[in-house]
Amino acid sequence: MVTTHRIVLAERPQGAVTPANFRAEDAALPPIGDGQFLVGANYLSLDPYMRGRMDDRKSYAAPTPVGGVMEGEIIGTVLESRHPGFSVGERVAGRLGWQTHAISDGTGLVKLDDRFKPITTAVGVLGMPGLTAYSGLLTLGKPQPGETVVVAAATGPVGSLVGQIARLYGARAVGIAGGAEKCAYAKQELGFDAVVDHRSPTFADDLAAACPDGIDINFELVGGAVWQAVLPLLNNFARVPVCGLIAQYNGSSGEQVDHLPAAMRIILSRSIMMRGFIVGEFWDQRPKFLDEVSQWISEGKIRFREDIVEGLDNAPAAFMGLLEGRNFGKLVVKID
Amino acid sequence: MVTTHRIVLAERPQGAVTPANFRAEDAALPPIGDGQFLVGANYLSLDPYMRGRMDDRKSYAAPTPVGGVMEGEIIGTVLESRHPGFSVGERVAGRLGWQTHAISDGTGLVKLDDRFKPITTAVGVLGMPGLTAYSGLLTLGKPQPGETVVVAAATGPVGSLVGQIARLYGARAVGIAGGAEKCAYAKQELGFDAVVDHRSPTFADDLAAACPDGIDINFELVGGAVWQAVLPLLNNFARVPVCGLIAQYNGSSGEQVDHLPAAMRIILSRSIMMRGFIVGEFWDQRPKFLDEVSQWISEGKIRFREDIVEGLDNAPAAFMGLLEGRNFGKLVVKID
Repeated sequence: MVTTHRIVLAERPQGAVTPANFRAEDAALPPIGDGQFLVGANYLSLDPYMRGRMDDRKSYAAPTPVGGVMEGEIIGTVLESRHPGFSVGERVAGRLGWQTHAISDGTGLVKLDDRFKPITTAVGVLGMPGLTAYSGLLTLGKPQPGETVVVAAATGPVGSLVGQIARLYGARAVGIAGGAEKCAYAKQELGFDAVVDHRSPTFADDLAAACPDGIDINFELVGGAVWQAVLPLLNNFARVPVCGLIAQYNGSSGEQVDHLPAAMRIILSRSIMMRGFIVGEFWDQRPKFLDEVSQWISEGKIRFREDIVEGLDNAPAAFMGLLEGRNFGKLVVKID
Repeated sequence: MVTTHRIVLAERPQGAVTPANFRAEDAALPPIGDGQFLVGANYLSLDPYMRGRMDDRKSYAAPTPVGGVMEGEIIGTVLESRHPGFSVGERVAGRLGWQTHAISDGTGLVKLDDRFKPITTAVGVLGMPGLTAYSGLLTLGKPQPGETVVVAAATGPVGSLVGQIARLYGARAVGIAGGAEKCAYAKQELGFDAVVDHRSPTFADDLAAACPDGIDINFELVGGAVWQAVLPLLNNFARVPVCGLIAQYNGSSGEQVDHLPAAMRIILSRSIMMRGFIVGEFWDQRPKFLDEVSQWISEGKIRFREDIVEGLDNAPAAFMGLLEGRNFGKLVVKID
């Protein structure tokens, strides 16, 4: 009998996520049935969207139940199989949760061929974050040569790809990151044309100075104060794909001013297009995305960075760090 | 020598518009030159966007200077002409301002043929408000059969057309209006499927009850509290064309809660598309719009209502009433 070690949602967070929201436990898995196979997890992907699942709030996906396994994508290896399409030893990725072992019938899983080098790219630059950047920027943002594209979390898996693809399309990429080390990396390694530190007390002015021609595309990942600073800089007919609001996930800023009316005024008077999206909408672009981005990586046109944490039991602390921007690159947990 | 009687911006409003913001004056016009003609105004159109021009704030158009003629569209008659394209007696419409007479070289003016019956439709259902409704709904909103379309100011020139066109496209039209008389008119005369009174203390609940399947298109004309009530009812992939925020034009609601983060969360989690627009963007649709809407009017499929005020000197009071929803139908000033 196989035992899975897993992290479950012990209680819903009230504001900031705390260690008490998680609980590690072991559970016996039943034998696999016909059409099923057993996956042993090698890596767990940690992504900001998981914060939303911890709340009991209407969203695009059902919340994780209290006591349920934390939702997340793993990269794993088929250990036993009674499924004709999946053989022992094959590598797969899919949403099997924060756990060491899981039984699957293949629903929602993808097989990983040798384009995924290292294999962790399957949950990073060549995975869901990469497709988010690629499809959101190209389909909704539609960058044109000479335009200014702004993205926050610029060293993260989505932001870093948004900036680099924007430049491949002839646009000027302005990144926003937290702290000198990340800013230097975004500028020197990722090639952003300008990078602004959101921790600086002069952040809003710095951003304006970095965007002398205004902003044509703001790829919104963070919300909150960064979005406040972006809004007045948007040009007429600017596009704002919205696929993350990490700065807001832990609750209210406590600001006692309603910023919605001013935001609406800018949207109206400058003919702004805003569009929320979830990457699943663009799943049909995945084959083209994989071809293009893996080609760009092999040509040295796209760089990426991963932040690997060891051990499933360290996932909660790593996830709390992610929500505060303490990771540096795509955050992945290596499972022993 | 011809004297024009005109209303100028005496001072910029601080919050609500007051009579002291306007001044009536007479001014001598120079003789017309070659390529020019003299227009005598018959009607002045009053529209919410004019409030924006009274402020000294970056927008899609330059503010009216203090001491300058209030901006606005008039319907007039050519009284004298030294322009080969405009003959005495022809009817024209264009942005010649709040005044009885003006000299033009034809820039931005349109000639009015006999499709405009009555002639005031040229600034209403067949004018800028009509084109706003038509292009914004069809090009940005894209109503589908069975969808729910919500529009406020439902008895006004934009809202009434949005609702009626939505129904011609097979959608369910839910109107928002202020007071029992307007609500009854919207339901009985304009044919809205449901109408909700925004002055009711149970407005947000009433709106939810009127939209049991949620909202697929919200044609945003008012902002403020109405928009707050709409937001939680938006369906996945809802579209929100934004072309007016009349509830916000006179300044802050004084609310000490930041509603922007929650709005962003809804936009993200439900893949909402918001798009500000100014009718000028869709000017090339005007010929098709005029053909279709005048045809619908002649077939009795589209109804409209005008609210005619007598005398240019009553324009400021009428305009202040418009900002508070005291007009009932498209507001036009008849100039003697």
